[in-house]
Amino acid sequence: MIKILITGGTFDKEYKESTGELIFKNTHVSKMLKLGRSRVDVKIRTLMMIDSLEMTDYHRSIVLEKCQNSQEDKIVIVHGTDTMTETAKFLGQKIKNKTTVLTGAMIPYAFGSSDGLFNLGSALAFVQTLPHGVYIAMNGKYFCFDNVRKNKATGEFEKVK
Amino acid sequence: MIKILITGGTFDKEYKESTGELIFKNTHVSKMLKLGRSRVDVKIRTLMMIDSLEMTDYHRSIVLEKCQNSQEDKIVIVHGTDTMTETAKFLGQKIKNKTTVLTGAMIPYAFGSSDGLFNLGSALAFVQTLPHGVYIAMNGKYFCFDNVRKNKATGEFEKVK
Amino acid sequence: MIKILITGGTFDKEYKESTGELIFKNTHVSKMLKLGRSRVDVKIRTLMMIDSLEMTDYHRSIVLEKCQNSQEDKIVIVHGTDTMTETAKFLGQKIKNKTTVLTGAMIPYAFGSSDGLFNLGSALAFVQTLPHGVYIAMNGKYFCFDNVRKNKATGEFEKVK
Amino acid sequence: MIKILITGGTFDKEYKESTGELIFKNTHVSKMLKLGRSRVDVKIRTLMMIDSLEMTDYHRSIVLEKCQNSQEDKIVIVHGTDTMTETAKFLGQKIKNKTTVLTGAMIPYAFGSSDGLFNLGSALAFVQTLPHGVYIAMNGKYFCFDNVRKNKATGEFEKVK
Repeated sequence: MIKILITGGTFDKEYKESTGELIFKNTHVSKMLKLGRSRVDVKIRTLMMIDSLEMTDYHRSIVLEKCQNSQEDKIVIVHGTDTMTETAKFLGQKIKNKTTVLTGAMIPYAFGSSDGLFNLGSALAFVQTLPHGVYIAMNGKYFCFDNVRKNKATGEFEKVK
Repeated sequence: MIKILITGGTFDKEYKESTGELIFKNTHVSKMLKLGRSRVDVKIRTLMMIDSLEMTDYHRSIVLEKCQNSQEDKIVIVHGTDTMTETAKFLGQKIKNKTTVLTGAMIPYAFGSSDGLFNLGSALAFVQTLPHGVYIAMNGKYFCFDNVRKNKATGEFEKVK
Repeated sequence: MIKILITGGTFDKEYKESTGELIFKNTHVSKMLKLGRSRVDVKIRTLMMIDSLEMTDYHRSIVLEKCQNSQEDKIVIVHGTDTMTETAKFLGQKIKNKTTVLTGAMIPYAFGSSDGLFNLGSALAFVQTLPHGVYIAMNGKYFCFDNVRKNKATGEFEKVK
Repeated sequence: MIKILITGGTFDKEYKESTGELIFKNTHVSKMLKLGRSRVDVKIRTLMMIDSLEMTDYHRSIVLEKCQNSQEDKIVIVHGTDTMTETAKFLGQKIKNKTTVLTGAMIPYAFGSSDGLFNLGSALAFVQTLPHGVYIAMNGKYFCFDNVRKNKATGEFEKVK
């Protein structure tokens, strides 16, 4: 059984017709798992629906608590990419006995040409196979929480050293 | 570096306007990796473009040879689902010193609502993390070559025991 | 009020996972009108679900009868492109007091990159504005039933003279 | 020959990965006509790329001048929906010897589930068949410039009386 925690991010943004804004409604993860014909046992839980630029340590402490109290030792966290590395570091120092994988998307899933489905597929695979620890799964790769940064110019994740 | 071997299958089928048939042209894997913002180093090589119902032991021996002669020890094989388990068994008894992952799709990628992108994401992740051996990556899971069957009724892969 | 008669054709074909065949289930017209935010009053009626290569004069006589007995004097017929001109000729000699527009698609709507939505939009507009007669609406144009052919090489409709 | 004038609007908005904003780059009309297999002769000209909430009488006078100076007497204008009725009124009192049709979209074309392709198909059909005058083509219908409003609650266009 894998726990999937939703925090928002580009991954789940939608277009609101009446105002032309990008907003959050419900997560698309269930729909995506259905599209991917996933048969992995998952529990999906939405903790918050925010842009990761708005993510504070208060929000991170909620995520941390849910991870620590989770009965499952495999956890995927859907998170905005802008501060994904900060949240990974926050969690990485405190969660040792579980495999936790953060993932997200550069393009909203609802927009039809998103990297979200690819990332979700890789995150679910990494969480089943990596040893305990906190990781980021983006760009087809996995990164340890203490050796990753987002390259602002390319929008891609890379090792620090 | 990961080697990706293309053999055809539903994954890469396209709709031919003039006749209304489903046909093969070129593989969509490069396009899909771009959509997924993948930064994994890959070499893509098309071995054949056939429906897996047409896959014979002759075809399988070509796939085997390419795997054995591959300099990379991480190999993803895109393959039709109908005989994917047969090919996995064929390879599994002969390739011991590499991680080889077969994947495919139930819906052609070109049709817009395919499981292909999800499967490709998970196959690339599994090939980076699983120990040497031959596996199938479908439905978000991985299966060892000697303990997997396709459930004809559901179209899903499952353990034999 | 516009009557929409469904006869099948590429427009409504779908991919069947279990066999890899292209099949008919239900028409996609309602879904497409919703996507197009259409507010036109329509009655949708499925007469048959066949490839237009299988369309016989028996089928055409059913279509004719439904057109003749229709209370609405604006009718859109969704039809395969292969024999669309034959059906238009069949109807054109017999229906004089209504505006009847045949349309279809080169790519199934379900495949994500179809011309179907464009064609449906144009057919609905043409049926509201053209004088009584039988027409084909394809490739953004309209054609009178007695001056149109499908160019087999290009798949496009064109005037005979 | 039909002239297509581009002014921006939701129709042509795109998602910018690096900032998560909705922006304008180039128009999608050519791509959409290709997808729709359109064989209508068109000249596409981009006049501006703005949200229609930013459309001033200065912008409208540019649109007007291009319409008046157009050699073609069939003109489609791609325009944001928020002030489409204002621009239609502005043009309607001054352009009498041409058929001018404004259209747009509630969802950006780039987002995969847009009404744009449907609207473009209907606008191109209406411009070929309606008598001289200025019209709005939305929701599968056409409206005369002096008898249309956008219903803010539903986002749909309707007759005033």
